[in-house]
Amino acid sequence: MARLYLASKLSYSGPQFNVISKNDIKVIRSLHRKKQRDDMNLFLVEGEKLVDELLLSEIKVKSVYCLAQSTESIKSDWLVITPREMSQISTHSPLLAVAYKLKPEPDIKKLSNQKILVLDGIRDPGNLGTIIRTADWFGIHSIIASKDTVDCYNPKVVQATMGGLFRCEMHYEDLSVLLELKKLNSSFRIFGAVLSGQDLSPLAEYKSSAGALIIGNESLGISEPVQLMIDHQVTIPRKGVAESLNAAISASILLHEWSN
Amino acid sequence: MARLYLASKLSYSGPQFNVISKNDIKVIRSLHRKKQRDDMNLFLVEGEKLVDELLLSEIKVKSVYCLAQSTESIKSDWLVITPREMSQISTHSPLLAVAYKLKPEPDIKKLSNQKILVLDGIRDPGNLGTIIRTADWFGIHSIIASKDTVDCYNPKVVQATMGGLFRCEMHYEDLSVLLELKKLNSSFRIFGAVLSGQDLSPLAEYKSSAGALIIGNESLGISEPVQLMIDHQVTIPRKGVAESLNAAISASILLHEWSN
Repeated sequence: MARLYLASKLSYSGPQFNVISKNDIKVIRSLHRKKQRDDMNLFLVEGEKLVDELLLSEIKVKSVYCLAQSTESIKSDWLVITPREMSQISTHSPLLAVAYKLKPEPDIKKLSNQKILVLDGIRDPGNLGTIIRTADWFGIHSIIASKDTVDCYNPKVVQATMGGLFRCEMHYEDLSVLLELKKLNSSFRIFGAVLSGQDLSPLAEYKSSAGALIIGNESLGISEPVQLMIDHQVTIPRKGVAESLNAAISASILLHEWSN
Repeated sequence: MARLYLASKLSYSGPQFNVISKNDIKVIRSLHRKKQRDDMNLFLVEGEKLVDELLLSEIKVKSVYCLAQSTESIKSDWLVITPREMSQISTHSPLLAVAYKLKPEPDIKKLSNQKILVLDGIRDPGNLGTIIRTADWFGIHSIIASKDTVDCYNPKVVQATMGGLFRCEMHYEDLSVLLELKKLNSSFRIFGAVLSGQDLSPLAEYKSSAGALIIGNESLGISEPVQLMIDHQVTIPRKGVAESLNAAISASILLHEWSN
């Protein structure tokens, strides 16, 4: 298609095709790996809805690649590439952006006066993405994740957040930071989702206080050192026989109880 | 390994290796396709935890394949196969069962006196599996799904239910059956999860009545003809800016509100 265009350049009035270099393709493909995302401070955003949300956010965009025929309003700084080139950088999307990762420094004072979500070893990208999407629904915009939590810039996570990632302050920290938050604000409450705690009443009781809600790993739950920091162990009442709930499901029911 | 055993048969006291035929391998692999599952009335269950749950359930099991070294208590009717054979029938599990699908006829009278979950076009296997797992937690054991809902015997669904599928009565029906339930029980309430309804108070108000909670398709919501059957449109209060919630997340928060 690019060649066809070049052959009839003078009479052609459609979109301007750009050339994507082999090196650009290599860089974009490498961003599926965490190490590369960290080294280059970049991540991928795929799909029309998600790129729209990205462009509305404060995140700095490096480049947007689109197909001539797939997007209605191609912006002047987008790079129009051929379907063949697109298939080399994206598996299913007609639109792909490369963006700069946000790296906010945690503002401990500010965090100690907010309701925050804490993730202790969430490993499944779909779970993390769904949790970020749900936190966005409930107006929770600060998340502290243990360092063994899956990378929030993993493309599967980005996809599942449905744009929530672009409105979320995500901090990967040692979770002992929670003790600092408590020191700064004595009314800061720490809730932990466990299978054998009391019911959800503490979430309702301390709804108006700042605090942290901790969700543990999918199979191991909250790690031992972090369990020691919990003020209120909370458990979703069970009526049936399932052994446990999915981590994103637990997080959502608890966020709903805490925020409404 | 099987050959090694045969060579030293007289002195060998470990597990008896069985032969899995090429045809058995072909049949098992074909059960990843819905048409084959329907034609043969069989489905696959993979993994130790899930096979354990299967054996505790009322579901009839056709065969169980295991590895000699991977399971502590190999039952006498299990078929012990080599790792090479296992890799031909299962991608990641040391234990695989082939079981007969349950085909319960919907008991309309009984359903009209229960709390049931209704799924209108859920397409994502992970979502369906998570919804079944969560319904199991909340003691909801009858699910009516529209015929375009993903097959509950899809291996990804089975995996995500974490055993909930084995305790669940799943009916694929035209959703006009809901009108029959209402005819049989005038206090049967129909709730629909929508983005622009009232809050969740009807779920609390009619908690003790029989009724149906309808969850719609991931991107399209509840289909138009089904919307007409809804008595109470319910919406999860939003505090933030996300456009919507994942279908399994919505289902879970609503089931929590309805059952507690």
